[in-house]
Amino acid sequence: MIKVVLAYSGGLDTSILIKLIKEKYNAEVIAVTVDVGQHEDLDIIKEKALYTGAHKALLIDAKKEFVQDYILPSLQANALYENAYPLATALARPLMAKVLVAVAQEFGADHIAHGCTGKGNDQVRFESAIAYLAPSMEILAPIREFSLTRDYEIEYAKQHGIPITENTNKYSIDENIWGRSIECGSLENADCEPPDEVFAWTQSPLSAPNYTAYLEIEFDAGIPVALNRKKMDLLALINELNRVGGLHGVGRIDHIESRLVGIKSREVYEAPAAVILLKAHHDLEKLILTKDVLHFKPTIENSFAELVYNGLWFSPFRLALSSFVHETQKNITGTVKVMLYKGSAYVIGRSSTKSLYVKDLATYEGKDQFDSPAAKGFIHIWSLPYKVHSMIHNFEKQTSDKVEEYLCTKKEV
Amino acid sequence: MIKVVLAYSGGLDTSILIKLIKEKYNAEVIAVTVDVGQHEDLDIIKEKALYTGAHKALLIDAKKEFVQDYILPSLQANALYENAYPLATALARPLMAKVLVAVAQEFGADHIAHGCTGKGNDQVRFESAIAYLAPSMEILAPIREFSLTRDYEIEYAKQHGIPITENTNKYSIDENIWGRSIECGSLENADCEPPDEVFAWTQSPLSAPNYTAYLEIEFDAGIPVALNRKKMDLLALINELNRVGGLHGVGRIDHIESRLVGIKSREVYEAPAAVILLKAHHDLEKLILTKDVLHFKPTIENSFAELVYNGLWFSPFRLALSSFVHETQKNITGTVKVMLYKGSAYVIGRSSTKSLYVKDLATYEGKDQFDSPAAKGFIHIWSLPYKVHSMIHNFEKQTSDKVEEYLCTKKEV
Amino acid sequence: MIKVVLAYSGGLDTSILIKLIKEKYNAEVIAVTVDVGQHEDLDIIKEKALYTGAHKALLIDAKKEFVQDYILPSLQANALYENAYPLATALARPLMAKVLVAVAQEFGADHIAHGCTGKGNDQVRFESAIAYLAPSMEILAPIREFSLTRDYEIEYAKQHGIPITENTNKYSIDENIWGRSIECGSLENADCEPPDEVFAWTQSPLSAPNYTAYLEIEFDAGIPVALNRKKMDLLALINELNRVGGLHGVGRIDHIESRLVGIKSREVYEAPAAVILLKAHHDLEKLILTKDVLHFKPTIENSFAELVYNGLWFSPFRLALSSFVHETQKNITGTVKVMLYKGSAYVIGRSSTKSLYVKDLATYEGKDQFDSPAAKGFIHIWSLPYKVHSMIHNFEKQTSDKVEEYLCTKKEV
Amino acid sequence: MIKVVLAYSGGLDTSILIKLIKEKYNAEVIAVTVDVGQHEDLDIIKEKALYTGAHKALLIDAKKEFVQDYILPSLQANALYENAYPLATALARPLMAKVLVAVAQEFGADHIAHGCTGKGNDQVRFESAIAYLAPSMEILAPIREFSLTRDYEIEYAKQHGIPITENTNKYSIDENIWGRSIECGSLENADCEPPDEVFAWTQSPLSAPNYTAYLEIEFDAGIPVALNRKKMDLLALINELNRVGGLHGVGRIDHIESRLVGIKSREVYEAPAAVILLKAHHDLEKLILTKDVLHFKPTIENSFAELVYNGLWFSPFRLALSSFVHETQKNITGTVKVMLYKGSAYVIGRSSTKSLYVKDLATYEGKDQFDSPAAKGFIHIWSLPYKVHSMIHNFEKQTSDKVEEYLCTKKEV
Repeated sequence: MIKVVLAYSGGLDTSILIKLIKEKYNAEVIAVTVDVGQHEDLDIIKEKALYTGAHKALLIDAKKEFVQDYILPSLQANALYENAYPLATALARPLMAKVLVAVAQEFGADHIAHGCTGKGNDQVRFESAIAYLAPSMEILAPIREFSLTRDYEIEYAKQHGIPITENTNKYSIDENIWGRSIECGSLENADCEPPDEVFAWTQSPLSAPNYTAYLEIEFDAGIPVALNRKKMDLLALINELNRVGGLHGVGRIDHIESRLVGIKSREVYEAPAAVILLKAHHDLEKLILTKDVLHFKPTIENSFAELVYNGLWFSPFRLALSSFVHETQKNITGTVKVMLYKGSAYVIGRSSTKSLYVKDLATYEGKDQFDSPAAKGFIHIWSLPYKVHSMIHNFEKQTSDKVEEYLCTKKEV
Repeated sequence: MIKVVLAYSGGLDTSILIKLIKEKYNAEVIAVTVDVGQHEDLDIIKEKALYTGAHKALLIDAKKEFVQDYILPSLQANALYENAYPLATALARPLMAKVLVAVAQEFGADHIAHGCTGKGNDQVRFESAIAYLAPSMEILAPIREFSLTRDYEIEYAKQHGIPITENTNKYSIDENIWGRSIECGSLENADCEPPDEVFAWTQSPLSAPNYTAYLEIEFDAGIPVALNRKKMDLLALINELNRVGGLHGVGRIDHIESRLVGIKSREVYEAPAAVILLKAHHDLEKLILTKDVLHFKPTIENSFAELVYNGLWFSPFRLALSSFVHETQKNITGTVKVMLYKGSAYVIGRSSTKSLYVKDLATYEGKDQFDSPAAKGFIHIWSLPYKVHSMIHNFEKQTSDKVEEYLCTKKEV
Repeated sequence: MIKVVLAYSGGLDTSILIKLIKEKYNAEVIAVTVDVGQHEDLDIIKEKALYTGAHKALLIDAKKEFVQDYILPSLQANALYENAYPLATALARPLMAKVLVAVAQEFGADHIAHGCTGKGNDQVRFESAIAYLAPSMEILAPIREFSLTRDYEIEYAKQHGIPITENTNKYSIDENIWGRSIECGSLENADCEPPDEVFAWTQSPLSAPNYTAYLEIEFDAGIPVALNRKKMDLLALINELNRVGGLHGVGRIDHIESRLVGIKSREVYEAPAAVILLKAHHDLEKLILTKDVLHFKPTIENSFAELVYNGLWFSPFRLALSSFVHETQKNITGTVKVMLYKGSAYVIGRSSTKSLYVKDLATYEGKDQFDSPAAKGFIHIWSLPYKVHSMIHNFEKQTSDKVEEYLCTKKEV
Repeated sequence: MIKVVLAYSGGLDTSILIKLIKEKYNAEVIAVTVDVGQHEDLDIIKEKALYTGAHKALLIDAKKEFVQDYILPSLQANALYENAYPLATALARPLMAKVLVAVAQEFGADHIAHGCTGKGNDQVRFESAIAYLAPSMEILAPIREFSLTRDYEIEYAKQHGIPITENTNKYSIDENIWGRSIECGSLENADCEPPDEVFAWTQSPLSAPNYTAYLEIEFDAGIPVALNRKKMDLLALINELNRVGGLHGVGRIDHIESRLVGIKSREVYEAPAAVILLKAHHDLEKLILTKDVLHFKPTIENSFAELVYNGLWFSPFRLALSSFVHETQKNITGTVKVMLYKGSAYVIGRSSTKSLYVKDLATYEGKDQFDSPAAKGFIHIWSLPYKVHSMIHNFEKQTSDKVEEYLCTKKEV
């Protein structure tokens, strides 16, 4: 009899898996539920695991680690997959894999099972993380292996007395403190507006309050440390932003996503805190970072977001990208003012003792400190290669030849 | 007596320049006003030029060329400088330079003058474009050369009977069909919300209508060709989006910008059409482009936006980047549905005959066409390098050693 | 009975496949050998196909198309995978796939077979190209499917009277006009120098002639058109460079390569013409392209090389990258002088009517045309952000505090 | 009377500057010569400074700091400007600036002078570094300011009894431990082979020994620590490689360079140690780094090389790039075998305990450990997007239509 550690969420897929794994593999199942801030009663889920046949059921609180070691580096990397998705699920998977491996090693299990299908990203994220953390661990993916359909699973649950929730069949949902993702059902028609029933964290912009909310978010070395002048740890701050952001309809995301496994899908997300913090953080960086860093960092950020999406959190590549990001955050200290109103978050002010914005240099008024004549020399050198290029290529003559014709086509008013 | 072609906007700077250039350089001034869609009575401006001493005043309508040859390639490149600024002024400067050069060549002038200061980007854009189009042309930049201040200019205008508008001193404004930029005055305090008086094209989100507007924007090979099922040329379509977008408070941008000349400034823009079209276009691309193109294109786009911002429109580099972009637009054909409401534009649906989103591949329901077992092989190969890396580096042993300690710090709930 | 089009090289793998496919799949085999410049007697190979049971054997001369449509765009992209491998085999695979698909369509076959193993890149290149050109084509990969070993194949050949060459078992070799690759055998020890017996096209640098060869290669719009002032078509020119380069020991490459399928391998190549032409072409670009194009092009080039290596020649991404490259080649017209000597090719001179190198600007001697005072303004603006950064961060004070200490540790001599 | 710290090399430019600065600015001159490994008698140079009027002459040995803090991070970044220039001079300038600032602060000087012209890179490197380290320092650049020509300088030297060396007028030379650069004179004809007289460190490949040299270079965490199994500090190791590499004609570089100040120039370098170490280091990285790091690192490296070339060594951007590089070097431990022969350095073997090259995965022979069937699944997913793309775009039909035509143009042999 083998021991299998199962990533257990309490949803349809993983609920039938406890029974099914015992049956098909003659195994003892240790169900592990990782608390990454999902809005569910996890104790009930734990009970359900035991009720449906788990040998052991563990509920591990990983929220602090998630916020500190996964969300924060991702925020500092302004990580948005395809400039849209804040990566909530993608960030949690490697952490869950880490917990699963630790449990397996603690209890001497050499199999880990997950309930992912064969066409999503999460199978890759789980298995890549496990391959890295425990290369000799065996992985079971029964939903994929036996090509189980939702219909089959529901039937199986009924036959074995496994309790399932009613709207199981409608949407596929995953959530943690950094966001909530909704797929399937009517959303699969990419041309239709998502119905209101898919949203749980956010008001519709249309029904959001008629008043604004003003926030002041304070950062210290790239870390959000206070909200409205009240110091908070990052977990509490994200929770509060999810609440107030959701109330004002902020954080709904609807886009067509290119999955790792070669297909496109229509994805809908709710992520109020992520949207607000990413906006505020990026705005503060514009005030503080030198232009060269600011213009290169997106190259780092896009690679970071892509690899996280692709399940390579633990790779040496991620560590190297994070080293770059970390170095840039030293001076990201200051305060960003954000206004929330009817679905949007607007940055309306920002200040920092490390600001490189020097009013006396930028102003067009009165006596300024900018050395204007220097600009002439600058422009001379700046445009020199293009001047040379034109001379070499006889550009002037050519344009000159066409002048009359050109001015003719431009109607003088 | 030299002949000088002056880029004439009718604002404070260029108004005093006609007199000043005649005086300081013993020159004959040809004032050229280029119509790029600014919301002003350009005939009055032309009259004013003659009234204040221009030898000749020309008003050139370049709106069609601007839309077709400058805005469209920029839209197809999803061009946003620092992920924020749609580049309205930056796109118009090279076109204006082209007109100025053509006029100078037509009238045998070998000097071109502009009214830019020494610390902005526009001096570079004008002069780089002219250096490319007419490398032997002499350039006069009197505001920069004589370090003229606003106060001096106002005094000079009064003394010489040059009419100036009242709020001249408050903000520095530039506008064309792709957007309106506002700088200076109270905006220089980056920590304060822009006062409502700076906006001219857009309602405040707070005072925008309580109802939504639904738009359908149709693209053909990357070109917006119809709005709400009505075919329109791009100029008309942009005008209409500026109107309806502005009404709903869409298109306000407030950010800290890193200028080419080494300083940061606080910039405020209004660009309803640009914001809506860029969002719709990018969304359609996500449906149609293969992932590799989609993920690489931002590298092209950021370079494109940066070089346009830096005044290098006519450079061979821009042409090469545009070749890449152009090749990607062939199949960008389809319709995007956008909802406008209280300050925001939301893409809520998209469709295309060229869509790579295939519902039967993506669905988690019923019989799908995706070959799930293939995923196992894919993941095996995908995670192989990381598995090898861990084995080589004895990762498993190391993590295993720390398991107990790790699980201890995770509180089981 | 199905019809199978087989990519037939005449080597061990594909020789046994004719028999094996007939047996295992009850199929009629059409053997197709594509002439891409391999140094073999292809008529004999064709005979061998028929002799060993092929229903039909075709020998298709694709050399011109290979040079024009595959090698040339790759040369213009300076394509070197991992800065080392000129991609000879990787470039030929998609062309071969195209021929195979055309033959299959001509003869009404709906299966294509190749003799690649499961751990190399070529299986991916063949199958990706076929997936693109004929998405409903069935692919057979018997060597991979039945995990055939070299030993099994040799035994099988003996039993069925299939003639094989003697040194079959020693190295795995592939060649075409752009280069020759050698793998396996003693080369698998990455720490040992490749033995001389693996090389067929090149002299050892140690035994190469004691005299130099001087070449003048003329390019017209990025295309090599003449060698030593004699016009040649590109096929002839490459053949001649392979000959003379090989004679002088030029073009041996030894490196550790990261394959697409997740493993590293030690690869040895011979590619005299590729090495010489890539060097000459890149050198000429340095003379002619503006700096911004020159510095951005490697980003394009690395993506190009990687996707070609990965078998995505026909992808829309490749077309977009090639559009960029193509636009940059218009002015790459001029002559490069190359010296060959004892294993190396040295560029020793270059000239072009499109050269942006202007001696009178660069010279430090006598009266030059460079406006030196402009440099002062340039540097002022250039270093302004760093000056501001230091002032904001009180850098001066900090360094000043440490001066004495710093100078103490530097010993004054 | 002001105090001026002068960067003093003892060459023509800086020799006349001592006198000229005293004259023109009524200043006291502190001449500082920084020993970065140039092959000159620095004590004589120091004497000469005093003899020609320096108030004080300092000779500062910065070789160790140069190697450890400037060359090493650059080697680990595989830094080659335009894939050609190992950046010797560019790396030394910021260090020299640091020394100059320290001396100025020690002696209470608020002016620093250098002898650079207005069209080179070094003026920018000196001044950008000083702007960063001491933003309020005044900079004097008399050669640029007074547009002094070589002829004027020689005349001035004669008149004031300043000793100059004979071949002063022929080439412009700079050297330090990482390389020697030669410009001007006959080299300005980019089409002519550099004459032998310009080289001082390297034999001509043609006259190099007829025997080979075999080297074993050992790296520990990215740092070269031993040569031919003998531990050496990096300074000694570089000196030895310069000696043996130079003997075998290795390290000559001839290319067209795009300078920061907008012009191209023809540059010739000698850098035996740099060429050998960069080659060996990069080769070892290929063995040890995962493919994603290996393929992304050039993006970091090119930016690194460009910013160093552009004088931004002390910028926050450089620090962030170096953080990325540093993180990648942890495992770069192993030995590289290099053969030197007649102008070239060949890597012929490499080994490491951290190698990701696993022979049993890569081998095509016998029983291997690679899971071949997995490849089928991998390829299925890999090529899926292209298959979908073709189906959507009806590619098959189109190609099929053209088959006959296509096969007709391919001549069957």
